[in-house]
Amino acid sequence: MEEVLRSLVEAIEPVDTQWEDRAWERLRSQIRPRGSLGRLEEMAARLGAIARSLAPDVSKKIIFTMAGDHGVAEEGVSAYPQEVTAQMVYSFLQGWASINVLADHVGAAVRVVDFGVASDLPEEWAVVRRKIGKGTHNIAKGPAMDRQDAVRGMVEGARLVMDAVTREGFRLIGTGDMGIANTTPSTAIVAAFSGKPVAELTGRGTGIDDAAWARKVRAVEAALGVNRPDPNDPVDVLAKVGGYEIAGLAGAVLGAAAVRVPVICDGFIATAGALIACRLAPRAKDYLFVSHRSQEVGHGTMMELLGLPPLLDLSMRLGEGTGAALAMPLVEAAARVLRDIKTFAEAGVTDTGH
Amino acid sequence: MEEVLRSLVEAIEPVDTQWEDRAWERLRSQIRPRGSLGRLEEMAARLGAIARSLAPDVSKKIIFTMAGDHGVAEEGVSAYPQEVTAQMVYSFLQGWASINVLADHVGAAVRVVDFGVASDLPEEWAVVRRKIGKGTHNIAKGPAMDRQDAVRGMVEGARLVMDAVTREGFRLIGTGDMGIANTTPSTAIVAAFSGKPVAELTGRGTGIDDAAWARKVRAVEAALGVNRPDPNDPVDVLAKVGGYEIAGLAGAVLGAAAVRVPVICDGFIATAGALIACRLAPRAKDYLFVSHRSQEVGHGTMMELLGLPPLLDLSMRLGEGTGAALAMPLVEAAARVLRDIKTFAEAGVTDTGH
Repeated sequence: MEEVLRSLVEAIEPVDTQWEDRAWERLRSQIRPRGSLGRLEEMAARLGAIARSLAPDVSKKIIFTMAGDHGVAEEGVSAYPQEVTAQMVYSFLQGWASINVLADHVGAAVRVVDFGVASDLPEEWAVVRRKIGKGTHNIAKGPAMDRQDAVRGMVEGARLVMDAVTREGFRLIGTGDMGIANTTPSTAIVAAFSGKPVAELTGRGTGIDDAAWARKVRAVEAALGVNRPDPNDPVDVLAKVGGYEIAGLAGAVLGAAAVRVPVICDGFIATAGALIACRLAPRAKDYLFVSHRSQEVGHGTMMELLGLPPLLDLSMRLGEGTGAALAMPLVEAAARVLRDIKTFAEAGVTDTGH
Repeated sequence: MEEVLRSLVEAIEPVDTQWEDRAWERLRSQIRPRGSLGRLEEMAARLGAIARSLAPDVSKKIIFTMAGDHGVAEEGVSAYPQEVTAQMVYSFLQGWASINVLADHVGAAVRVVDFGVASDLPEEWAVVRRKIGKGTHNIAKGPAMDRQDAVRGMVEGARLVMDAVTREGFRLIGTGDMGIANTTPSTAIVAAFSGKPVAELTGRGTGIDDAAWARKVRAVEAALGVNRPDPNDPVDVLAKVGGYEIAGLAGAVLGAAAVRVPVICDGFIATAGALIACRLAPRAKDYLFVSHRSQEVGHGTMMELLGLPPLLDLSMRLGEGTGAALAMPLVEAAARVLRDIKTFAEAGVTDTGH
């Protein structure tokens, strides 16, 4: 299985800088002052480089919401009981939850994947089943999963995205998460890669009190101490202090990059997955957009490590893919800018070259 | 005419705090952690208070792009010649420009209004004609316009919006501008209200060099020195150092508030108009959203004076209503959040009250 992952990573091509140059040439000749659309132009040039086109089409959109449970929940690190993960999966399937509402608003499909919910989900639920295990082991006491399971989760996540692109024609991917206690492994991941003190990276998750926050810091410190994840081996970090749905989220980024389609990650947990993907395959970064700045305090360090700023900053901390959904119209707008705004020559407007 | 303006201001009702409370009650009982949608929730509560409903509908959208020329262009404060204003109006009418592309992307109509383009626009152009004058006078030498014209511009701007709402059913208004040299009067407006040094508030507009920037600072300083606008009299500020399209932009905010419909202002020039509106009618602020943080340096001070943070920060500095267009899906998303996300009771999900 690790060879499958290796060939997936090797399949990721760098984006085409010639097309990027062509995109910038068009952007600079449009009937508006040079650079006046700011970050929309940077996104437009990147979309051109990804699609190798001056008319990139990102209108068919899908959000993968990856669900999983976490053994570390038993350390009392979350405000919610573990049963809520499955309840929320049910809500997603019914179309009742935040991600359903926001995805519908932006015209994106939602696909809910069970990567590791603790309970057996009823047969009749229309969830995509990729369960690696019934919740990870408690990272405060040992590794979350073995290395093979981490690799398998990534490969499965990548395949889901690649199939959505090649078989169904989706052209813009969003990633999101559901999993009680999953800010704890995500904090451990950013701590492992950054080496910063755990307390500086630990946030309030769904809204924990001071006592639970202190337990969360201790759990992450224990996870790092017991497991000694190797920051130079992203698969080791994922296996030792990550989660099943985080493996799926990392794989989704790899899969999107492998089939040359842009991918927007959600907040803290989805960015943890994206970080693992980009450590494993640095070229994947060119296909990645970070949707929003999460209120979770460690998210800023993740974005620094990635070298990618967020598109939105709305003080959100929900997950599910909600930030990815809200950022989709901005990415689409950038594609429209590149393709549709006329040039000075086309429109006969006076160009002073500014 | 000043009486018409006064009755318009008096017609603006405060938003309904009981409906705001009801909106917060619903938002806090939805199947997600309390406060997890951040600023989207604040917007949702405000939309509920504006519409007096838990199902505010803002889906029918229109952007008013107000055009006007400025006598101060003769001071050499812009990178572009004055003829570009009319050329860009033509581009808007043809659907070629940035605002057309972005408005189409978000499903908003665009209405282009001539409030004061310097040239006579050809009969066959489908522009809305509300010309107050053929460009303002040079504010570095005297008042931009007389007080009556400033009032007339505001009343006309308000009427356009009120008619769009009451006769055509638009439920979300965006404001944008076109006018070579119009960052100069906008800078003078924020300088008049804030009292800050002009050099701190003066930006590069469409991309001027150091020499033009120095001329721009001198022009604004001259405008303030010659005209002595009274910051306690917003109509005086508008008349002495404003512009015809800025009058229209101020009026648009008043009109939207008067008919209880939310309005999103674009960047530096549209916010200058919004600032005048809110100085005249402080209640109008409850109906106003600032779309984005402009790269124009004085915009931050405008938002401080308004007490409203921007929704987006994408390093844009284009105008036309482009920022307002990009922010529209966020405002719509907030309305959908309020109406559509199920509550814990409705969904049968465990609520721990966090």
